[in-house]
Amino acid sequence: MAGEFALIDRYFARPTPSAVLGPGDDCALLQPSPGMQLAVTTDMLVADTHFLPDTDPKNLGWKALAVNLSDLAAMGAKPRWVTLAGALPAVDEAWIGKFAEGFFACASEYGVDVVGGDTTRGPLNLCVTAMGEVAPGQALRRDGAQPGDQIWVSGRPGLASLGLALLQGRIELPEPWPRLCIGALEKPRPRVALGLALRGVASAAIDVSDGLLADLAHIAERSGCAANVKLVQLPHLPKGESYDAVLRKMALECQLTGGDDYELCFTAPFAQHLALGRIAAELELPLWCIGEMTAGPAGTVTVLDPDDKPVEFDSKGYDHFA
Amino acid sequence: MAGEFALIDRYFARPTPSAVLGPGDDCALLQPSPGMQLAVTTDMLVADTHFLPDTDPKNLGWKALAVNLSDLAAMGAKPRWVTLAGALPAVDEAWIGKFAEGFFACASEYGVDVVGGDTTRGPLNLCVTAMGEVAPGQALRRDGAQPGDQIWVSGRPGLASLGLALLQGRIELPEPWPRLCIGALEKPRPRVALGLALRGVASAAIDVSDGLLADLAHIAERSGCAANVKLVQLPHLPKGESYDAVLRKMALECQLTGGDDYELCFTAPFAQHLALGRIAAELELPLWCIGEMTAGPAGTVTVLDPDDKPVEFDSKGYDHFA
Repeated sequence: MAGEFALIDRYFARPTPSAVLGPGDDCALLQPSPGMQLAVTTDMLVADTHFLPDTDPKNLGWKALAVNLSDLAAMGAKPRWVTLAGALPAVDEAWIGKFAEGFFACASEYGVDVVGGDTTRGPLNLCVTAMGEVAPGQALRRDGAQPGDQIWVSGRPGLASLGLALLQGRIELPEPWPRLCIGALEKPRPRVALGLALRGVASAAIDVSDGLLADLAHIAERSGCAANVKLVQLPHLPKGESYDAVLRKMALECQLTGGDDYELCFTAPFAQHLALGRIAAELELPLWCIGEMTAGPAGTVTVLDPDDKPVEFDSKGYDHFA
Repeated sequence: MAGEFALIDRYFARPTPSAVLGPGDDCALLQPSPGMQLAVTTDMLVADTHFLPDTDPKNLGWKALAVNLSDLAAMGAKPRWVTLAGALPAVDEAWIGKFAEGFFACASEYGVDVVGGDTTRGPLNLCVTAMGEVAPGQALRRDGAQPGDQIWVSGRPGLASLGLALLQGRIELPEPWPRLCIGALEKPRPRVALGLALRGVASAAIDVSDGLLADLAHIAERSGCAANVKLVQLPHLPKGESYDAVLRKMALECQLTGGDDYELCFTAPFAQHLALGRIAAELELPLWCIGEMTAGPAGTVTVLDPDDKPVEFDSKGYDHFA
């Protein structure tokens, strides 16, 4: 067994120009940039819980890294280094090769080195730890929002969970939405450039992994204020001839409570409105102002209809925001 | 489910005085010491592969952290911060409480802060990433051994696998060995103080996780030389009235090829002999000079009998060193 897994370890040992010492010793050795702070995050992905067991291993490799880079993005940190630990039920070199292809494609696109890891036998489990750098005082924390700050979200949250519904045959959508939704699910794009651009602009940020409202509630809770989200300010949903009331309700639920999107939700003072418009244009990434922080009870998120009346939802994942 | 796991996450969120920002945001924020390098290691522990499913959760918590601190020790790095990701089949608060007790006992003893983590549902799996600091050029790498360097090992490698054999009822040992062996298996002591003391003294180091000969072979391979281990220089084995030939053979195999010990195996020039004696006395930790690096084929480890004749073993885990 040791031999098999040593083989896998070598598979993941590629040049690490940004490290003093890469894989193959007891530890990797890294030289942090002078004066910078280190942002560190770890995520564990488990078959059945986080992905379908028959997920394309190349997509899975991409996503295992992307979800961690998304946490660095939400902190405004520049991704630098990652480690990968994995348990595999068997040594399937074709599967491993495709997984590595996706993982290193993401690493290469976002400029991180894979500096260490561990491989073992066990039920399929992938654990990535990512490290990035951010100057002291520049990190985008969850606890900096103030009443009156505007609430923003990037891209189109909800696409990933619509993509899952499509793959499971629960809905049908007209073109080009299937491609967009399944792409969002299978190959999420961590908003690293946005996170970097938001330093000094946003007052708080989080990535949308659990669902827009749930993640916004984390900002509200940590910041000691409340949040109002306006339905009419949400990004457009898929439209088409099959776009009936049932589908509209599901799409809205995906948008507000679906997870796995990895867009950034953030707050910023109104004075940053124009700066955010410029950032959106430069990054060619839509940014939507969807509401406002208020002085209400800490952690409360309220969705308002066009008449500013609270809307109630009956969906799992987010069960009280009357 | 989210609620249950949020509860667990809070269980592991304790004060982190050494971090700028601890658990609860997208990332932890750490301020590396000026000029120091960061040593990073990650290890994944899986039920059945690395520990018995009915292992005392307090011991498991200790060990999950200890094996990572051992990698930092082998690098000569000072432990600073760790993250913990875990998959649990169910939320068993009693189990989690005991696991956390052991994990934080180890963290407290070795002065590390638990700065972040992730908890999810899945087959039992624990992944720790540990970060330490070491001055540039001071790290104990595997690739620094030279022909003529002496080979050293701390403590009594083999105790842990003898402990496993005891628990499995495969052997009996006289007092005080059962206590020592089971203690070595269940609560390994990462040799952090030794690793720090070896900076500037040892030429190469590794921790004994796979077995003494296998880990020494890693040093030999990375250093481009060979290693001779002398049977008569190995630490004393358990003795007693039940210490027959079969037991002696098993004990020797455990000593040479048993894993899970987390002692340090290292090399040093002969000129450091006295310095190592002083370190052993100061740390109250036996250090054994067990052989010598040679100019032989890279990665080759040879065990010599009292007449300097090569000894052959038939054991799994290490199958060729004629």
